[in-house]
Amino acid sequence: MINIDEAVDAIRIRDHFSAFAESPSPRVYGEGAAEAGRAAFDQLLGGDFDISTPGAGDRVSPEVSPYGLTLGVAYPRVARDDVDALVSAAIAGRRAWREAGPRRRTEVCVAILEALHSRVFELAHAVQHTSGQAFVMAFQAGGTHALDRGLEAVAYALAAQEFHPATATWTKPGRKQDLVLDKTFTPVGRGLALLIGCNTFPTWNSYPGLFASLATGNPVIIKPHPHAVLPLAITAQVCQQVLAEQGFDPHLVTLAVERDGDGLAKELAVHEAVRLIDYTGGNEFGDWLVDNARQAIVFAEQAGVNAVVLDSTDDFTGMINNLAFSLVLYSGQMCTTSQNLFIPAAGIETDQGQLSPAEVGTALGRAIDELLGPDEKAVELLGAIVNDRIPTLVELSRSYGEVLVESRALTHPAFDDAVIRTPSLIMVDEESTAYEQECFGPITFLVTTESTSASIHQFVRTVGEHGAMTAGVHSTSEEVVDAMREAALDVGVALSENLTGGVYVNQSAAFSDFHGTGANAAANAAYTDLAYVANRFHVVQSRR
Amino acid sequence: MINIDEAVDAIRIRDHFSAFAESPSPRVYGEGAAEAGRAAFDQLLGGDFDISTPGAGDRVSPEVSPYGLTLGVAYPRVARDDVDALVSAAIAGRRAWREAGPRRRTEVCVAILEALHSRVFELAHAVQHTSGQAFVMAFQAGGTHALDRGLEAVAYALAAQEFHPATATWTKPGRKQDLVLDKTFTPVGRGLALLIGCNTFPTWNSYPGLFASLATGNPVIIKPHPHAVLPLAITAQVCQQVLAEQGFDPHLVTLAVERDGDGLAKELAVHEAVRLIDYTGGNEFGDWLVDNARQAIVFAEQAGVNAVVLDSTDDFTGMINNLAFSLVLYSGQMCTTSQNLFIPAAGIETDQGQLSPAEVGTALGRAIDELLGPDEKAVELLGAIVNDRIPTLVELSRSYGEVLVESRALTHPAFDDAVIRTPSLIMVDEESTAYEQECFGPITFLVTTESTSASIHQFVRTVGEHGAMTAGVHSTSEEVVDAMREAALDVGVALSENLTGGVYVNQSAAFSDFHGTGANAAANAAYTDLAYVANRFHVVQSRR
Repeated sequence: MINIDEAVDAIRIRDHFSAFAESPSPRVYGEGAAEAGRAAFDQLLGGDFDISTPGAGDRVSPEVSPYGLTLGVAYPRVARDDVDALVSAAIAGRRAWREAGPRRRTEVCVAILEALHSRVFELAHAVQHTSGQAFVMAFQAGGTHALDRGLEAVAYALAAQEFHPATATWTKPGRKQDLVLDKTFTPVGRGLALLIGCNTFPTWNSYPGLFASLATGNPVIIKPHPHAVLPLAITAQVCQQVLAEQGFDPHLVTLAVERDGDGLAKELAVHEAVRLIDYTGGNEFGDWLVDNARQAIVFAEQAGVNAVVLDSTDDFTGMINNLAFSLVLYSGQMCTTSQNLFIPAAGIETDQGQLSPAEVGTALGRAIDELLGPDEKAVELLGAIVNDRIPTLVELSRSYGEVLVESRALTHPAFDDAVIRTPSLIMVDEESTAYEQECFGPITFLVTTESTSASIHQFVRTVGEHGAMTAGVHSTSEEVVDAMREAALDVGVALSENLTGGVYVNQSAAFSDFHGTGANAAANAAYTDLAYVANRFHVVQSRR
Repeated sequence: MINIDEAVDAIRIRDHFSAFAESPSPRVYGEGAAEAGRAAFDQLLGGDFDISTPGAGDRVSPEVSPYGLTLGVAYPRVARDDVDALVSAAIAGRRAWREAGPRRRTEVCVAILEALHSRVFELAHAVQHTSGQAFVMAFQAGGTHALDRGLEAVAYALAAQEFHPATATWTKPGRKQDLVLDKTFTPVGRGLALLIGCNTFPTWNSYPGLFASLATGNPVIIKPHPHAVLPLAITAQVCQQVLAEQGFDPHLVTLAVERDGDGLAKELAVHEAVRLIDYTGGNEFGDWLVDNARQAIVFAEQAGVNAVVLDSTDDFTGMINNLAFSLVLYSGQMCTTSQNLFIPAAGIETDQGQLSPAEVGTALGRAIDELLGPDEKAVELLGAIVNDRIPTLVELSRSYGEVLVESRALTHPAFDDAVIRTPSLIMVDEESTAYEQECFGPITFLVTTESTSASIHQFVRTVGEHGAMTAGVHSTSEEVVDAMREAALDVGVALSENLTGGVYVNQSAAFSDFHGTGANAAANAAYTDLAYVANRFHVVQSRR
């Protein structure tokens, strides 16, 4: 049983905390749990998905796994004309949800998280076969870590709503007699919330917004990416089941699936009832939302140019192995993967002597190969390529500079049609413009600069202009690390310093690390801080 | 000495709390304090105001008191071409301000509040002779209550910034060895803040935004209303003095005065460095800000249609006297004054029998006259009319319905040129459209309806469309009060129930009452809740 008060303590202490065990081992989850989850997933394939979507007409099956499998799961399709009916149903239960109050809503949200946890293997397969993540990553990032991020959002929502008391007595001393009033303070949700899911992290990037909105009293319409519906369909199904069991309108959470190209998100986003939007995805649609969904607050995570400044190290092997893992994981398809490694053209000082950019690149290539090992092991780190355009982008990037590490195509031992790519490393000069835009996928630039201070300058310039979710520095010099800290504060990006062990720049831990800051162009909000929840409700008082 | 931790406790307890004594009596402030403040104010008249405004060119003296006095205070004028120079100076000190951290910034803000308090009589005269408030109200609302609202914002800012620790150690248990990281969490201000002051409450409506922005690490440019500069000029001067004394760049707070019609606010508002805007004023410019200052978060308080539903009472005299005071105070020129009193056409049940709308109107008129008394006493409640258009609007409103209470013009015994008006009450039918727009000043509508449930319906409709800062209900029926509570939660407005004593619907107490909710069209933010401060900074972390 989850104790929400422990979770609320955890967000304030920020030591390690997790409510959902990340190891899929039978020692943790019990014998047969993995197989049962697999069977439940298989059972969903090719069938009508059981979910209630008011207003929906025909069904749609938009998903093909990046591993090649056609999922064939059929969902109720919401056409643009169906939106009003869906919205009416979505907001019908809001008054009872408001009257339930923060503690009761929290209980329901925690029950939803626990029910989702009981289906975590099934969820992991759904994440794997929509995002292309390898299974263990899908179990962790798409399952247990996503649940932790959801719980974290519930904890923030509760803390923010309980910052003020539900009632108070006000007594103002007066000359003749005291003035006394009884007061009530009610958190009231802002309105209907729209959650627009992404393809790469359908659950991890959605659970914070989903649970933050729901816990603060807002109904939520989930609009998944058409290629990553199943994880959020399972999520919506569980929400509806638990809400109904606990006596609330199940349509407080609804699933709105579209056919590729229907433009449903736009129709929903500008609906006057929609007052909150959570979005993860490209800049183009994110900017459109901010410009057009003016009736709503938009929490948007978009593209960025993550960077690491390489200056010096007393553990070259540790540094290279750490970098290699961060680039290999999910073939660089994380919004947190480093894209630009800045390095002085004269090379860096290390415990293995002064090493040139080319030597660093060669070492990185070797470390990547060693880490990957044989193909059947490699695919468990790389996962599959989520998007058809990525192999073309990888090919194109070869022309930008000197290819220090070639991207290789691998074959998955179990899935013939899976598209697998290893990371590439392209050396470019700081004058190049190639590294200024986000190059999503297994493409990293080793950017040679005049000096480390030039590297920091380019880091500030590129992140200042285009934003970043993560930054790193490797240096044995206190002055360089201090300069990077100042630079990271100036451009508002989280910094990882001298990571050489089992923690990677592209991973953030719920309850301790903030994901994004809200302070640069890559994201206007962080998972999760007070600003992420405080605007999702208002306090309405009465006094007598 | 102010103990900030007591203030932080107070925002969570929400009992009565005040750090600045509201009585201007010599018993509280000492013999001679009032006279010294008056002398300091007189000393400012007709002279060059001592303030540092980088970039400013010539001087401008835009203020004439609503009491007729030409202030003749000359301020550095910021022309539209001067904005870049001002902005550069304003942001120059931001890094040191960031490095100071939340506690140190809080200390400086508290020192500013204490220094302002030492000039509270001078400030009160400045508020009186710009807003037209009577002196005691200017001392309280413009002085001590404004300081309390400022302190409240500082307390919220500190609580929000200290919600997370400054540092933490993260230890994740590992199979072979624990993973350990040291982490730092730094609140970083969002950027430059712009404060756009209003004419009626130059300090009370400005101090929350000023102190919320400053305490969270943001430099602030104060752009006062051209007719209400002096209170904010004194404020900026004190800020600069205290900042310099405490070793910070005084230009972290600057004063930007324009000539009427210069359009300076627009030029500042769209500057790319401006990331926060606090605004109080009309809908037209507020909507312009939201539409155009897209690089900033806009906290806006605009027009609304405040309402009271009259259903029944067991203390008719108390109810009428309470309503009379709320309408008389500052001639209804508060954003919180009730505009629409909804009443069933058949009348209301009272301890003095069933009374028709006309009888209620007559009683209200009599209560207003009794409260006002002779002219020399009346002006101490009414203050002066701030705006030339108001007498015309009052005249115009006579044609909207039946005039139950006539507005009278009074002569101020000390200021011949002061424009003074008593409240008017116009009876209209619920079908009228007259009461749907904000009619600023001494104009109140008694709106007759079919029944109390029709009154509640009209309340929901008008507030739902146009917003409101306050709402009230008078009823002896639990069902009616419950229905009004639900209605007020639905439209997101604070409700006062059955006020018959010394608390008025248009007054809110810092540390206990929220001013506005953010949940309706009258204001997108409340003084003060977590949402008011949480977006003014970001948490930027580093880890190693």
